[in-house]
Amino acid sequence: MELLKQRIREDGLLIGNNILKVDSFLNHQLDPQLLLELGREFARRFRPDGVTKILTVEASGIAVAVMVGLELGVPVLFAKKKQPSTLVEEVYAAEAFSFTKQEQVSVCVSRRYLTAEDRVLIIDDFLAQGAAAKALVSLVEQAGASLVGVGVVVEKAFQPGGKELREAGIRVEALARIGAFTEKGVEFV
Amino acid sequence: MELLKQRIREDGLLIGNNILKVDSFLNHQLDPQLLLELGREFARRFRPDGVTKILTVEASGIAVAVMVGLELGVPVLFAKKKQPSTLVEEVYAAEAFSFTKQEQVSVCVSRRYLTAEDRVLIIDDFLAQGAAAKALVSLVEQAGASLVGVGVVVEKAFQPGGKELREAGIRVEALARIGAFTEKGVEFV
Repeated sequence: MELLKQRIREDGLLIGNNILKVDSFLNHQLDPQLLLELGREFARRFRPDGVTKILTVEASGIAVAVMVGLELGVPVLFAKKKQPSTLVEEVYAAEAFSFTKQEQVSVCVSRRYLTAEDRVLIIDDFLAQGAAAKALVSLVEQAGASLVGVGVVVEKAFQPGGKELREAGIRVEALARIGAFTEKGVEFV
Repeated sequence: MELLKQRIREDGLLIGNNILKVDSFLNHQLDPQLLLELGREFARRFRPDGVTKILTVEASGIAVAVMVGLELGVPVLFAKKKQPSTLVEEVYAAEAFSFTKQEQVSVCVSRRYLTAEDRVLIIDDFLAQGAAAKALVSLVEQAGASLVGVGVVVEKAFQPGGKELREAGIRVEALARIGAFTEKGVEFV
């Protein structure tokens, strides 16, 4: 998606060896109009697939997921990282290691909102090692729901998450795929 | 806002003495179309005030905040709970006690995205004790920015947060104000 690549080229910051900071528009400060455009693009790609629910994980997946839900006219469910006291009913839970935060987190959703009748589209901001996406796939499987696919805003194609998901037969759509970080900046593939 | 009150009456669940669960449409599962309507209502109330930035806190404030930002055409900044490793530059930070999670959390924003030139509208899903809102107000003050007001989807008017903020001279707009939980259900004021 050219609009997104352009924004990453203009406003993305590389820190260290393999961390791309896009927190001026995607995961700290948010550009609502850009997010709406991203939501429209995901909706265009997945509209034929009969999606009944969007699944994401707090926190930075929520903004783009809600725009996809708005465009497809379906509810958005965000998995919580560990079980808060207001989530009393039974949950599906899965473990994920956050490489950004360097900690193991448990993600969970209420069984009430993810059922065997659902056709689920997983949406997240980043796909790198794939830990969060795989945990969300596990929640879908535990619910006996159908997985339509995984949509991510930015895929770091040089890290194994996307490849592993695709090899498991899962449709993965990335709006921007980064092949490498070089001295010249971000190289898309 | 009648649409919201109706939804709370229909889908809200009371658990324990003073916890209202609205996680079927507001803070676990999200109804994007309702969120857009809430965003439009906040935008209508604050449009004359020259808002340049929406400030919220992860996670459940993000969805409604991004709709307000979409309607007002301004960026949304969400404060993070504790400092992740990708947020390397200097931050403004404030402490808040989460009564829901029964833990002290630190909320922070990058100094890059909150400046003395900003006219800030704080948006959150719930206002009860006011801990999160007061922490966000502190971030605005630390940045030397102007606070336009605080917009919350649901205010528990029988808890002190809203009263305390108003007594401090802050404009607080709540789309639904709950006066009491009774045997008959939710009583709005």
